Amino acid sequence: MYEVEVKVPADLEAVRTRLEARDGTRERAIVQEDTYYDAPHRSFVETDEALRIRRESNPEAGSDETRITYKGPLLDEQSKSREEHETAVEDGETMNAVLTNLGFEPAATVRKERERFALENGEYDYTITLDSVDGVGEYVEVETEVETEADLESARDGAYDVLERLELDPGEQLRTSYLGLLLES
Amino acid sequence: MYEVEVKVPADLEAVRTRLEARDGTRERAIVQEDTYYDAPHRSFVETDEALRIRRESNPEAGSDETRITYKGPLLDEQSKSREEHETAVEDGETMNAVLTNLGFEPAATVRKERERFALENGEYDYTITLDSVDGVGEYVEVETEVETEADLESARDGAYDVLERLELDPGEQLRTSYLGLLLES
Repeated sequence: MYEVEVKVPADLEAVRTRLEARDGTRERAIVQEDTYYDAPHRSFVETDEALRIRRESNPEAGSDETRITYKGPLLDEQSKSREEHETAVEDGETMNAVLTNLGFEPAATVRKERERFALENGEYDYTITLDSVDGVGEYVEVETEVETEADLESARDGAYDVLERLELDPGEQLRTSYLGLLLES
Repeated sequence: MYEVEVKVPADLEAVRTRLEARDGTRERAIVQEDTYYDAPHRSFVETDEALRIRRESNPEAGSDETRITYKGPLLDEQSKSREEHETAVEDGETMNAVLTNLGFEPAATVRKERERFALENGEYDYTITLDSVDGVGEYVEVETEVETEADLESARDGAYDVLERLELDPGEQLRTSYLGLLLES
């Protein structure tokens, strides 16, 4: 499985209106609050790893959940794939206490509101996420998944086309994560 | 809150018969499988800390649960109190993968079957646990909690009395944890 993901800065209010006009289906709105940790025994920046506690709430559904995630270094530049292990934990504050007692320190917290739409374009189904990221700004992500490397190019072209239909500029594509943008700001 | 806990080796079959004759109330039987981890950046033996994943199942209730626990060093020799943080995790195997990727290594696994009874003795309610510990042996633990330090001595005397009523010898009291006994064996 290969993931295509394109992210550009955007005015979310305007994009929302255009999505509705182009039959985008609104799926859900969630709030994610991600705390990233520094390790006591190695630099995750150098090793290209991450340890995160994510609190995710869906105000419309009245649900919320906390998960702990480990992400390993990039295995493959093309597919951007990483070893990843994630599981739900009952209590995020307690998990934070376990980690901090072991010497892991909260390094940064990224909070974002995410509104997700689905939109078909040619042979691919795209997920369009309108992200409002505290202290960073507003962004639109267009994503899809393909089975084989051979499909990557046409799926990426399709994603650029989706951006253009939403009057966004694929040339403004950003490859930096929200955590990276926050740390740069 | 102060905890009184006395543990002695025992023949569980004989103790079970005596408990039934003395109106001990059987509460539940569970299986606990505890994996203790070594840290990559300090020696938990030296710092008197522990990191554990516990898988606990109750075959009679058909339930099972996994929890992660951090235990800090002894704060107080008399009450044996420690800082402790524990929360449930959805998937123990994934939590193990998070820890091992961070450099924590499984050091030992203690598996025990625990059958719990309740028994009154004087002014205290005691919990009596019949433990069959893989690779270690059979033990009985008699426990209660008291509000003040002044009550510790009478509660401990009561626990010794419970042991004698079960034809066990308080003089055989062991202070080593099951993990310690396993590592010594």
